[in-house]
Amino acid sequence: MLMIIVMNLGADEENILEVEEKVKEFGYSVHRSTGEKRTILGAIGLPREDVKELLEGIPSVEKVVLVSPPYMLVSREFKREKTVFKVGDVEIGGEKIVLIAGPCAVEGESYLQAAELVKNAGADILRGGAYKPRSSPYSFQGLEEEGLKIMVEARKLTGLPLITEVLDQHSIDTVAECADIIQVGARNMQNFKLLKELGQLNKPVLLKRGMSATIEEWLMAAEYLLLSGNERVILCERGIRTFETYTRNTLDISAVPIAKELSHLPVFVDPSHGTGKWKWVPSMCLAAIAAGADGLLVEVHPSPEEALCDGSQSLIPQRFAQMLEPLRGVAQSVGRTL
Amino acid sequence: MLMIIVMNLGADEENILEVEEKVKEFGYSVHRSTGEKRTILGAIGLPREDVKELLEGIPSVEKVVLVSPPYMLVSREFKREKTVFKVGDVEIGGEKIVLIAGPCAVEGESYLQAAELVKNAGADILRGGAYKPRSSPYSFQGLEEEGLKIMVEARKLTGLPLITEVLDQHSIDTVAECADIIQVGARNMQNFKLLKELGQLNKPVLLKRGMSATIEEWLMAAEYLLLSGNERVILCERGIRTFETYTRNTLDISAVPIAKELSHLPVFVDPSHGTGKWKWVPSMCLAAIAAGADGLLVEVHPSPEEALCDGSQSLIPQRFAQMLEPLRGVAQSVGRTL
Amino acid sequence: MLMIIVMNLGADEENILEVEEKVKEFGYSVHRSTGEKRTILGAIGLPREDVKELLEGIPSVEKVVLVSPPYMLVSREFKREKTVFKVGDVEIGGEKIVLIAGPCAVEGESYLQAAELVKNAGADILRGGAYKPRSSPYSFQGLEEEGLKIMVEARKLTGLPLITEVLDQHSIDTVAECADIIQVGARNMQNFKLLKELGQLNKPVLLKRGMSATIEEWLMAAEYLLLSGNERVILCERGIRTFETYTRNTLDISAVPIAKELSHLPVFVDPSHGTGKWKWVPSMCLAAIAAGADGLLVEVHPSPEEALCDGSQSLIPQRFAQMLEPLRGVAQSVGRTL
Amino acid sequence: MLMIIVMNLGADEENILEVEEKVKEFGYSVHRSTGEKRTILGAIGLPREDVKELLEGIPSVEKVVLVSPPYMLVSREFKREKTVFKVGDVEIGGEKIVLIAGPCAVEGESYLQAAELVKNAGADILRGGAYKPRSSPYSFQGLEEEGLKIMVEARKLTGLPLITEVLDQHSIDTVAECADIIQVGARNMQNFKLLKELGQLNKPVLLKRGMSATIEEWLMAAEYLLLSGNERVILCERGIRTFETYTRNTLDISAVPIAKELSHLPVFVDPSHGTGKWKWVPSMCLAAIAAGADGLLVEVHPSPEEALCDGSQSLIPQRFAQMLEPLRGVAQSVGRTL
Repeated sequence: MLMIIVMNLGADEENILEVEEKVKEFGYSVHRSTGEKRTILGAIGLPREDVKELLEGIPSVEKVVLVSPPYMLVSREFKREKTVFKVGDVEIGGEKIVLIAGPCAVEGESYLQAAELVKNAGADILRGGAYKPRSSPYSFQGLEEEGLKIMVEARKLTGLPLITEVLDQHSIDTVAECADIIQVGARNMQNFKLLKELGQLNKPVLLKRGMSATIEEWLMAAEYLLLSGNERVILCERGIRTFETYTRNTLDISAVPIAKELSHLPVFVDPSHGTGKWKWVPSMCLAAIAAGADGLLVEVHPSPEEALCDGSQSLIPQRFAQMLEPLRGVAQSVGRTL
Repeated sequence: MLMIIVMNLGADEENILEVEEKVKEFGYSVHRSTGEKRTILGAIGLPREDVKELLEGIPSVEKVVLVSPPYMLVSREFKREKTVFKVGDVEIGGEKIVLIAGPCAVEGESYLQAAELVKNAGADILRGGAYKPRSSPYSFQGLEEEGLKIMVEARKLTGLPLITEVLDQHSIDTVAECADIIQVGARNMQNFKLLKELGQLNKPVLLKRGMSATIEEWLMAAEYLLLSGNERVILCERGIRTFETYTRNTLDISAVPIAKELSHLPVFVDPSHGTGKWKWVPSMCLAAIAAGADGLLVEVHPSPEEALCDGSQSLIPQRFAQMLEPLRGVAQSVGRTL
Repeated sequence: MLMIIVMNLGADEENILEVEEKVKEFGYSVHRSTGEKRTILGAIGLPREDVKELLEGIPSVEKVVLVSPPYMLVSREFKREKTVFKVGDVEIGGEKIVLIAGPCAVEGESYLQAAELVKNAGADILRGGAYKPRSSPYSFQGLEEEGLKIMVEARKLTGLPLITEVLDQHSIDTVAECADIIQVGARNMQNFKLLKELGQLNKPVLLKRGMSATIEEWLMAAEYLLLSGNERVILCERGIRTFETYTRNTLDISAVPIAKELSHLPVFVDPSHGTGKWKWVPSMCLAAIAAGADGLLVEVHPSPEEALCDGSQSLIPQRFAQMLEPLRGVAQSVGRTL
Repeated sequence: MLMIIVMNLGADEENILEVEEKVKEFGYSVHRSTGEKRTILGAIGLPREDVKELLEGIPSVEKVVLVSPPYMLVSREFKREKTVFKVGDVEIGGEKIVLIAGPCAVEGESYLQAAELVKNAGADILRGGAYKPRSSPYSFQGLEEEGLKIMVEARKLTGLPLITEVLDQHSIDTVAECADIIQVGARNMQNFKLLKELGQLNKPVLLKRGMSATIEEWLMAAEYLLLSGNERVILCERGIRTFETYTRNTLDISAVPIAKELSHLPVFVDPSHGTGKWKWVPSMCLAAIAAGADGLLVEVHPSPEEALCDGSQSLIPQRFAQMLEPLRGVAQSVGRTL
């Protein structure tokens, strides 16, 4: 990583040597360039935010600029070709768009019926939540282990791989035993201890972007997973917090081409959380695929008005199925299949 | 407009009468509903934010909620069918997607060549800026009247209608004389005096969404235009300010289906300002059309590295032309033509 | 909690009964008010966000409005008098302003010297981080257990109580054994599983506001702690993410009077993270106390340019001490002592 | 202004010469520094955002960084000593804190009574709005010229100087004739044409920070005024848009010490718009002064529940007067007087 250190106008030889020394201590190589008025140092080494902060705390330093991004393993510089891997029979990151669908939460045996409907409607992978992060302690918090068991039954019934969210460190093993893909929710994107543990598991991880995270912070979170040894990571855009109130979040569709340019990892989109209203979900599915997304994560529920969680953003299976025809057209227009 | 006024737990008959009286003074009809513990008033009348504010200032009032949106003339409730109108031979808001393209600023005679290239590449309407709003007073501020003259020449040459931005009240007439569509920029979205004057002109107006405006505020700004007499208004999403730094703004693609559901006005998208980088513009054009946009506003410049304004977000004409094939596919998939 | 459900214009008796039924299932009592055109239902029960969401998913429902806030135990309605408790000899939430100070991270034995300087400069409680949440996996992640041991030694040396952050569930017991107050960082504000576990410990918790959390979400997070049995909770404002770039975050000083009006819990302010630059810390300390804060959390480091963490926002002990005189004046002006 | 241009890894001599040439065309001097792998150019000249953009559009350029800020005349580098000037007998920017108070809008003759109350309560300057920018065209838009006449009468009655907002270019002269200070509202902060005209008048201007403007953009707007010839400019923080909903805006108190460090201009604070609720105004007045503000802009109305504009954020005169005692204490603690 290249870091440029602009010294102050008044910095003297001693100041410059001090900075060069400090930078070398962290294992960087340094190159000095002496201008008419100012000295500029270029330093090459590991992308450490703490070194930048430390240098900015030194009075003789005017500004520190990272020229290269602070992530490595997730970047296209590190690995040019796209990451493609399989979950069961489903190829992630390949030419074919992957459809993940299902109810927000597992609410009981009705999940099994939902799973079959979702499969028939065209889903490739089944989603469902056993552990639910809720702003209010008075809200339904999920069926937990009971919910996982029902999901496993649904997999037997449909043959579809499962994705579900892990909320805490204590249940990582339980979740990993049942799920084919482990989801890290937006609120946990910077739960670094959780990421480190998940990085050591041999399970694909879908990493949602935090509610007000930048794309760089999102890629840095993925870097934690890759650095801990897990290369099967899916990035998932799910909307960021803005001032808009008609939508629950603002789905950042531009994050798709950007993340795909910066990183080799597959990029999915969740338009259900991204908009919060089922009626805008189909448009945003189309937009996501048009922009290059590798897959979609869609909430589908047979009777949304009964859902204990996120009913207002769930499509009924028929609508989900109806959407697939225009989706196929869009996919083909951008060189993909459905 | 329906407004619900929730009285405080302690509000007595006198308090309630006082509020009812006040609401009636503003021409609202009021309906009282007495609960076991609380009284709730429903008031129907003009959508006035100031009445809501005034009521919220009364100690015996707990909360005031607008049930209907605060705009009327721009809403689908007021007019169900989509607004469609013609600018020259170009139909705005119809089945065919409208392509507006051209350099950000008119920088001299080179604009004429750019105009021809843009036309040949497939544009329906020609864009160009004669007056440029710039954060810095040291930046190029546009050729002003000189620029308008060049634009008029370009229209003669290409036969394409012109769109250009008006920045201040003094030059409204000059701009209106030359332009076929007048653009109101993001920074002027809430320049209400300007909107009132433009509402009285007999010229179509393209109204960009403010940098951190909600969709409701954007529609309220359009309401100013319609209430002043101008019904030929185009809404244009151009990105909102978020924490993201890779892009100049975050293009809010979901604003397209939402604005089209709430309003009968045509909705365009400007992915050039929306992303700030030319390489992400084609993806976002595709996404915008997939989401239902009625047209695009794209910066195209024959030699972006010479542009005095926004070169980094301008496509070269060849790339603009290349993008049209996938764009046509996407348009067809969602029932539109290009 | 009062919730108002506005039915659609077209809702018929059957629709209304369906909604009333559903609301009662969740244990709410319902009161119907029939207007000329619309029916409005008032429902009283537990503040459950999921019930609101579920109702909003029903087609015959136009809008659902929570009139009372969604938290209870943390609210002034639940408990009028301020929460005051002791940590060692230090009274939290009382008349006297509490000063928490110390280095951001424990970096080694030098922490002991820092602790003594901080004590002599006027601190009441000692801060230090053993586990550090860092955006980059390449940055210094803290000395972990080793760091805790050094902190315990510093307590012996100075007699000051300790506050330190807990990052993950596995180390809760280890941290609780050493710390007198456990800090929950901004990134963990909505780590609900962590909150539930901390709620069951018999240790005071300082809960930082999330980087882009609303005050309501912050109070809801505190509600998790109180509902799990822990009443010794300190709220700590530490800056929210905005578009501003001169500061690391924007310290929301207005959150102080608001949180204190809505809740009985003590409210502290962390101007070091709030601004990110030591030179603005003293002004913001003064502002926080002027606005009614019960305490301050300030990063103080004997040689900030050596700090492995947040050096640029750390005051040297002399500056911290210098600030106390004007701080005392401000405290007295608002009826407090230092 | 120093600008650093980092060339791409692959940039050759020809590329570098091209960039150097382009930079010189804009009147910059350039200094080249050749590293082992990369070339870095330092350029010194006028702070032009358009040159930065243009350079970023060149493929061989990796990154362009402004080391110095993009404003000059407003900066402390340009003028070290604080700007102090008089409006009538009132010194702005001096040791004494300046209190501007009055109703939000002039609603009729009642303004005269309000003016006297406000004067007696301790105000130095009288505020009032004759032209009101309102999101909704259905809201009260101000008494316009009629309102200005009443304000002039109030000045005769009280002897206090007047401040009022100008909304459009057509009424600049009318407003300038009546007002002692012209206010530019948040929505007009980047109405550059208006700023240029106001810069040419011989009247002090109070420039409010835009609703989602950075401090840098705010200072750039002030630069427009100074560059056009007006040096009597007051910066006024009035809250920025955040996700918080309890407050109308989030008052950025940290903007006070920052703006005062970066610029020599006096900095005022408007806690009425900043919070939107009168009950939080006194706390925020105290915090603003503690943070170093040179003055306050406070909405005071004798009967807020009758106010046609912003009643919910207006203090009654008694409360305004009550606040002055603690305010005096805080002012003294930070070396100021009231």
